[in-house]
Amino acid sequence: MKTTSAALEDLSTGMSCSIGSARLNASEIVEFARAYDPQPMHTDAVEAIDTPVGGLIASGWHTVATMMRMLVDSRVFGINPILGAGVTDLRWPVPVRPGDELIGSAEIIDIRESKKPDRGVVTLLVTLSNQLGQPVLSLKPSMVVPRRVVSDSP
Amino acid sequence: MKTTSAALEDLSTGMSCSIGSARLNASEIVEFARAYDPQPMHTDAVEAIDTPVGGLIASGWHTVATMMRMLVDSRVFGINPILGAGVTDLRWPVPVRPGDELIGSAEIIDIRESKKPDRGVVTLLVTLSNQLGQPVLSLKPSMVVPRRVVSDSP
Repeated sequence: MKTTSAALEDLSTGMSCSIGSARLNASEIVEFARAYDPQPMHTDAVEAIDTPVGGLIASGWHTVATMMRMLVDSRVFGINPILGAGVTDLRWPVPVRPGDELIGSAEIIDIRESKKPDRGVVTLLVTLSNQLGQPVLSLKPSMVVPRRVVSDSP
Repeated sequence: MKTTSAALEDLSTGMSCSIGSARLNASEIVEFARAYDPQPMHTDAVEAIDTPVGGLIASGWHTVATMMRMLVDSRVFGINPILGAGVTDLRWPVPVRPGDELIGSAEIIDIRESKKPDRGVVTLLVTLSNQLGQPVLSLKPSMVVPRRVVSDSP
């Protein structure tokens, strides 16, 4: 999955790879949440203590955005851009807290034809787990991946 | 849906509401993408011209994060926090470009019991459309919503 030339023909169901790791500190969690998810459990470490989650946790969308950064940085499809076609089965089983180490993996679970002959649609199962091995995020994103360009010359 | 006292008992399938509108300018698009989705179609207005999308577009996750902000600001469940239980059927049918007006709506499409008697799980269909009426984002988030607290006193 991680070569510079990865095209649809290079991929098959069951292939998997690491997408690296990341950490979110408290100030990053608060900064993201103030912009996009301003709720006390994400924006204020003191107020968060009195919420059902018992302390500051990252917005679920911050965790997802961090996953996307890991996916882009790991170049799972080589030089091809990651063009999202959709996502199913997104779950946040356990909250992400400041300093948690998020360890990511991706596995190809489906490859299907596109209506356009020069590409296909690849579905991944992407999982982030914390330093205790607990899954904190899982989702099945589908992405458009081009076929290798076939030259007309011999 | 938009009262300060909204609890599970106040909600029913088919209820819908506006979640307001938002715009993303080019610098916001680039700033988000540099942090979370550093690909040329999101980070560089000039390089983006030569990509298949023909110009700068927002990261799909930036559009989703903006939807979350609209959902929080519109207080669809009143004073109750929005606690995401998961998402299905997330799609980005049309790219979001700088200055597009994103107009949001939410409809309750399912309400189900939780294992815990003091709450339920509400599934919304949330849609953002642009100023041309084209859907740019749709997703079905499920959220935990508490039942009204029943007092023991007469």
